[in-house]
Amino acid sequence: MKDDVCISRTNRQGSYQKDKKKILDGLRRIDGQVRGIERMVEEERYCVDVLDQISAVRMALARLALIVLEDHTRGCVTRAVRENGDGEETIRELVEVFRKLVR
Amino acid sequence: MKDDVCISRTNRQGSYQKDKKKILDGLRRIDGQVRGIERMVEEERYCVDVLDQISAVRMALARLALIVLEDHTRGCVTRAVRENGDGEETIRELVEVFRKLVR
Amino acid sequence: MKDDVCISRTNRQGSYQKDKKKILDGLRRIDGQVRGIERMVEEERYCVDVLDQISAVRMALARLALIVLEDHTRGCVTRAVRENGDGEETIRELVEVFRKLVR
Amino acid sequence: MKDDVCISRTNRQGSYQKDKKKILDGLRRIDGQVRGIERMVEEERYCVDVLDQISAVRMALARLALIVLEDHTRGCVTRAVRENGDGEETIRELVEVFRKLVR
Repeated sequence: MKDDVCISRTNRQGSYQKDKKKILDGLRRIDGQVRGIERMVEEERYCVDVLDQISAVRMALARLALIVLEDHTRGCVTRAVRENGDGEETIRELVEVFRKLVR
Repeated sequence: MKDDVCISRTNRQGSYQKDKKKILDGLRRIDGQVRGIERMVEEERYCVDVLDQISAVRMALARLALIVLEDHTRGCVTRAVRENGDGEETIRELVEVFRKLVR
Repeated sequence: MKDDVCISRTNRQGSYQKDKKKILDGLRRIDGQVRGIERMVEEERYCVDVLDQISAVRMALARLALIVLEDHTRGCVTRAVRENGDGEETIRELVEVFRKLVR
Repeated sequence: MKDDVCISRTNRQGSYQKDKKKILDGLRRIDGQVRGIERMVEEERYCVDVLDQISAVRMALARLALIVLEDHTRGCVTRAVRENGDGEETIRELVEVFRKLVR
């Protein structure tokens, strides 16, 4: 299970190892998009084109968040529930994550 | 009105000149945040910390979008309405921008 | 233009007359959906089914908002710009509406 | 654990019993707000006031969704993980719920 480890108070590690490459590729693409928007703004490109790009980046980030969230639930949350009986703290944390993403 | 020019079918320019520096600073900060998330993922940092950062970037992008949107409405939309009588195409475009941001 | 009147400081009226029936039908459908969710909760139906219904209502409300927003921009905003030269107050109001819907 | 039961393929029940009253009260308030918006539209009230009310209802629904989501995670998801070892199906379902709420 070493490839799917995760949370403990002292050693909180990500559960997204198997998707790490996909997430990093996604982040690099987003990074490129953000720098593309910077160039557009420098060149004073049309507002609507800038806004469309901002929306596209927001969507791409939401998609990445869903991957991390799925891995987290499958890894960290599942592990916390199995090990602690209920994983109360992990669940509260998860709901807080939801709140930030939904708002 | 040269500093607040904008849309025409042939020459569609941004209406955000006065906020250009603020928008570029915001985009650079977002760029830095995205690269920060890349490093977190490379180090396999805890999922929740990654998700919190993703939410923060999404919020920052929404705030930038609102600045561009405000400048666009005040500049391009106002101009289109004044010049064309109704600015129908610009309005349809604005609603489309909005649809993408809300979803 | 009587059917498309709207804003004035003393007499602020909606610009959505032509879509009034469509908006009211949408609201009644949403009203029915909300009462459907109440029944689901009373019967302690499965959380995921309740959540799916809540998402559906949120989507339906966003769609209605876009109709009202489009009519508002085409009616009130256009009129304010034409009559006041810039319609500054109306634009500020519109941006505030955006902010509330995007968040 | 009778008051916190939930999912099984044959008998999928909600995990929100302890918040049932709060959720129902919230839904009734939302129901009242939706009917309030219907009256506003019938009276052709100002677009911005209608849009503000729609935003308020969307926010109220998001808050209710977070309550149900928290109870679901604490109840159904926890139970599925404990009983099935991983609760794979429940986790996939949760991510799907989430996708619908974020979009």
